[in-house]
Amino acid sequence: MKPYAVGIDLGGTNTKGGVVGRDGSVLVKKSIKTEAGGGADHVIGRIAELVADVAAAAAVGQNDAAGVCVGSPGPLDSRAGVVHEAPNLRWRGVRLADMLRPLVAMPVFVENDANVAAFGEAWVGAARNSKCTILLTLGTGIGGGIVINGELWRGVTDTGAELGHMTINFQGPVCSCGNRGCIEAYASAPAVARRMKEAVESGRQSCLKAQLLAGEEVDSKMIYQAAVGGDPLSKEIIEETGQLLGIAVANYVNIFNPDYVVLHGGLVNAGEALLGPLREETKKWCFRASQRNLRVVPSELKGDAGIVGAAGCAFARAEDNS
Amino acid sequence: MKPYAVGIDLGGTNTKGGVVGRDGSVLVKKSIKTEAGGGADHVIGRIAELVADVAAAAAVGQNDAAGVCVGSPGPLDSRAGVVHEAPNLRWRGVRLADMLRPLVAMPVFVENDANVAAFGEAWVGAARNSKCTILLTLGTGIGGGIVINGELWRGVTDTGAELGHMTINFQGPVCSCGNRGCIEAYASAPAVARRMKEAVESGRQSCLKAQLLAGEEVDSKMIYQAAVGGDPLSKEIIEETGQLLGIAVANYVNIFNPDYVVLHGGLVNAGEALLGPLREETKKWCFRASQRNLRVVPSELKGDAGIVGAAGCAFARAEDNS
Repeated sequence: MKPYAVGIDLGGTNTKGGVVGRDGSVLVKKSIKTEAGGGADHVIGRIAELVADVAAAAAVGQNDAAGVCVGSPGPLDSRAGVVHEAPNLRWRGVRLADMLRPLVAMPVFVENDANVAAFGEAWVGAARNSKCTILLTLGTGIGGGIVINGELWRGVTDTGAELGHMTINFQGPVCSCGNRGCIEAYASAPAVARRMKEAVESGRQSCLKAQLLAGEEVDSKMIYQAAVGGDPLSKEIIEETGQLLGIAVANYVNIFNPDYVVLHGGLVNAGEALLGPLREETKKWCFRASQRNLRVVPSELKGDAGIVGAAGCAFARAEDNS
Repeated sequence: MKPYAVGIDLGGTNTKGGVVGRDGSVLVKKSIKTEAGGGADHVIGRIAELVADVAAAAAVGQNDAAGVCVGSPGPLDSRAGVVHEAPNLRWRGVRLADMLRPLVAMPVFVENDANVAAFGEAWVGAARNSKCTILLTLGTGIGGGIVINGELWRGVTDTGAELGHMTINFQGPVCSCGNRGCIEAYASAPAVARRMKEAVESGRQSCLKAQLLAGEEVDSKMIYQAAVGGDPLSKEIIEETGQLLGIAVANYVNIFNPDYVVLHGGLVNAGEALLGPLREETKKWCFRASQRNLRVVPSELKGDAGIVGAAGCAFARAEDNS
């Protein structure tokens, strides 16, 4: 068994790469600009250089690496390695695995980015030794990952685990997916900012009021920082976000009866202001019998979840192939 | 490999038993009164007699049977064979497997009744050869079963697959579980009857109006029969029930990306009046990429799902043990 794998975390702005050992430790990591504007060929060329760079920096030769896995925005076909659509990369139908393979001297795998994070947390992160991990990535959208008995459940056509697009109120606000009341429409970063703006426009006071009314951008980070700083309306918005997420998490708990629910992404930095109400509401809405072995926890791998999880997927898939 | 297994479908009123072959065929089946009022010892004694009866009728000796599995109302511990709570049997903490084992001459297994139905449909029913089956039982409550790659997913403490208790409107009607807007609170048999009653009380016309206003019981069967018979309000209630179920099914599809969603239970006899709007609404609310390989179908095993599914679980679990 080869002792190392390379994990790539491909994002719209930055791409991170790392060399990871079989214990999940990161030997070397590096971040570069994705330069998505240059097109898929350019981006994939840069990924190949990043793989060579981190491998060289870790003094890992091709014979020591089980493979490289790219955690990519999706939807995608993980087996064929084709990215169907990634709006923030302006990609459509990009044959990522086929294009990267000739440029690197190791096996190439492709996996959805939220799946990669879930796999990483279940492997060596907040949910290690779990039987069933449900992960939510809280960001511009809400992504999801499902790990059952150490294996990703991707769905029969790789389009499952869209946990952000579960309706919790079919009469609720319109979501980016076109439907109503998905948890993403309440608790994604833009949805939190929208709820704050609506509250101020309805006459509520806040230290962010002047900026909001002047039309300046107020993002979810500014809101949770204002909440931590004591702004009552910001606290209320973050608390309500936790409660809405708790209703969604209770649904996942009634469906999966998992041992871990892991929350990942910028908003998790709000800490207990978000997680406290989230845990409270989850308890209120899900079956008591499913609460005994349940832990609702923040990501442990944080910014490294992408590279560690991708490397973990490379180890797992290289073994499946052999 | 032993060629037969016995499946038991334990209900509050009737208990069915059958001898089933490895191809899922039912050799012999029989139904008896459960006599729940007699207590757990009495009921379990009757189950043992039923096992002996159907085995004798099929001329199956103990050496030919892989085992007997009882599909029981839950929640329960499938490994220990303990039924935590079954209100319609008035059972609490009944050690079903331990009590039945000395009375029958074959291995004994216990499984949740909705899980058993899901296993049966995925094994030899409407979802045979599926990679992922989601089953809903529409009855007094809404039960659920999840089969992934031929195996039940029960959750880490056997309390998963509570698919009826997924909130689709957190501002919706109060559910039997204490929460709001679970799909069970909209589409269980009593919920359908309640919605019909509310519509008539608000002044709507229906052929069932006189009975409803006289305080006579109008159940969901009478409503779907009236719908099939052309009563406009009944048709509307059944159509709306299908739409609400479609919103729930879309959630399961976005979460699991299954190839089969199977609907089981009396209400499914409403046929296309229910299934048409259900499929329409599912399409509207779930990701297009997950629709390609999706089939939303009625149960094929119908009243035999309990015995066939339980026997299938007995075959599977007898092999796991060996």
